[in-house]
Amino acid sequence: MPLRIGDTSGNRTTARTAIEHAAADGAQIVVLPELVTSGYVFADRAELESLAETRDGPSITEWGNLAESFGLTIVAGFPEDAGEKVYNSAVVVDPSGVRGVYRKTHLWDTENAVFDRSDDLPLLVDTEHGRIGVLVCYDVEFPEWVRAVALDGADLLCAPVNWPLLPRPEGERPTEMVRVLANAGTNRMPIAVCDRVGVERGQDWTGGTIITDADGYPAALGQYGHPGNVTADLDLTQSRIKRFNENNDVHGDRRTDLYRRTPLLD
Amino acid sequence: MPLRIGDTSGNRTTARTAIEHAAADGAQIVVLPELVTSGYVFADRAELESLAETRDGPSITEWGNLAESFGLTIVAGFPEDAGEKVYNSAVVVDPSGVRGVYRKTHLWDTENAVFDRSDDLPLLVDTEHGRIGVLVCYDVEFPEWVRAVALDGADLLCAPVNWPLLPRPEGERPTEMVRVLANAGTNRMPIAVCDRVGVERGQDWTGGTIITDADGYPAALGQYGHPGNVTADLDLTQSRIKRFNENNDVHGDRRTDLYRRTPLLD
Repeated sequence: MPLRIGDTSGNRTTARTAIEHAAADGAQIVVLPELVTSGYVFADRAELESLAETRDGPSITEWGNLAESFGLTIVAGFPEDAGEKVYNSAVVVDPSGVRGVYRKTHLWDTENAVFDRSDDLPLLVDTEHGRIGVLVCYDVEFPEWVRAVALDGADLLCAPVNWPLLPRPEGERPTEMVRVLANAGTNRMPIAVCDRVGVERGQDWTGGTIITDADGYPAALGQYGHPGNVTADLDLTQSRIKRFNENNDVHGDRRTDLYRRTPLLD
Repeated sequence: MPLRIGDTSGNRTTARTAIEHAAADGAQIVVLPELVTSGYVFADRAELESLAETRDGPSITEWGNLAESFGLTIVAGFPEDAGEKVYNSAVVVDPSGVRGVYRKTHLWDTENAVFDRSDDLPLLVDTEHGRIGVLVCYDVEFPEWVRAVALDGADLLCAPVNWPLLPRPEGERPTEMVRVLANAGTNRMPIAVCDRVGVERGQDWTGGTIITDADGYPAALGQYGHPGNVTADLDLTQSRIKRFNENNDVHGDRRTDLYRRTPLLD
């Protein structure tokens, strides 16, 4: 979806329309972009603070109402007003209300100047559809972080993102998307990424929305630069099966005995 | 390259020809496939043992001679006769001789029935071209293992592989290749993978040879199913630069403080 910096009311309408379309298409789990209420390119901390909202703010309240009306689980990014702190957060709401909030732990570029960095562990929420993990944007480029989500039993990882449009070779998918596909396959865990489109204060966005399958291949792809819902049918019970041939298992084959002897966690 | 199971002499000739062509093309570092001397689909342990050779065996001796003649660094897979044990190994030879041997630690499918599993850490060899890391095939599908190589300062990861041809969606790269691209980009470390082609005892091979750049995009690709050398010019001094914008660093941004609180190394 396209978003407008600072236009919280307009962005909320854009999000509501997308959620209603998704529900009409039969969606059960809906993922919206990172910072869907505010936009991304903040002039400074003061502007971010003016756009942040609390966990009982108007956007999350509206998403809760939509989740209840349509029987949805909704994962969406928002700038979280947490008193002295402001986090780049993502919320999970379902018909029962707010199920959890995750605060981004790997901050991208100028986010370091305006957001507080969280020490959250990945959010995992048990829903009627399975266990849903939540990370935000740059987080999913760290295979350790995605692995942690999968090792904690997530059946699906949902990731609101804002992928800045960066140069890439002709015909190649954005490296962020390649990393998502790889992380899905190495964990046999589908990943649903919702990106955004349009230009905001000179920053163009990739529109790299993708839903992967558990094998690390795309189940559904957006069109770069074009708004629109992206939908896939996934059998999340398959995510529990980490074995993929008679002798191999994506998690069981890990040599943690050896990894402990490397600088991995130094 | 195509290989024939059990035809050590013929395979050695195939390898020598490929090395000579690479040298003629100006190559400085040459990577050959996994188990290049023996082929892969062993009937049983006894057959594997009959094809294994020691570190001073005829293949490694020949590669040493070629390395010296052409001023090459050669990375190649071979079944290693280590007395009671037989490993799926890869050797690094340069004009000064054998620089190191790595024994595969993540075994694929029926390898578990014939090979011994090693407890080696990744091999790192300092050469005139930079620090070269070595892993074998399935090893590179474990982001922790590739990360360990990169954290130990490898400027290039070389990976002899035998990628079995598996079904994949039309138009998609094999998931193994996607994982290699992702691992390269998340570490800003190029990866050179040499695969094989042809059918061996009913097993078809992917021919997924690829050299990546440090950004996680292909620098050179083979043609699926077709033999031939694949060459790329890489500036390996760039691998030392893990920072990619004013505020981000692929290694420095890792939240090891948080990763330690996850089941990552349990």
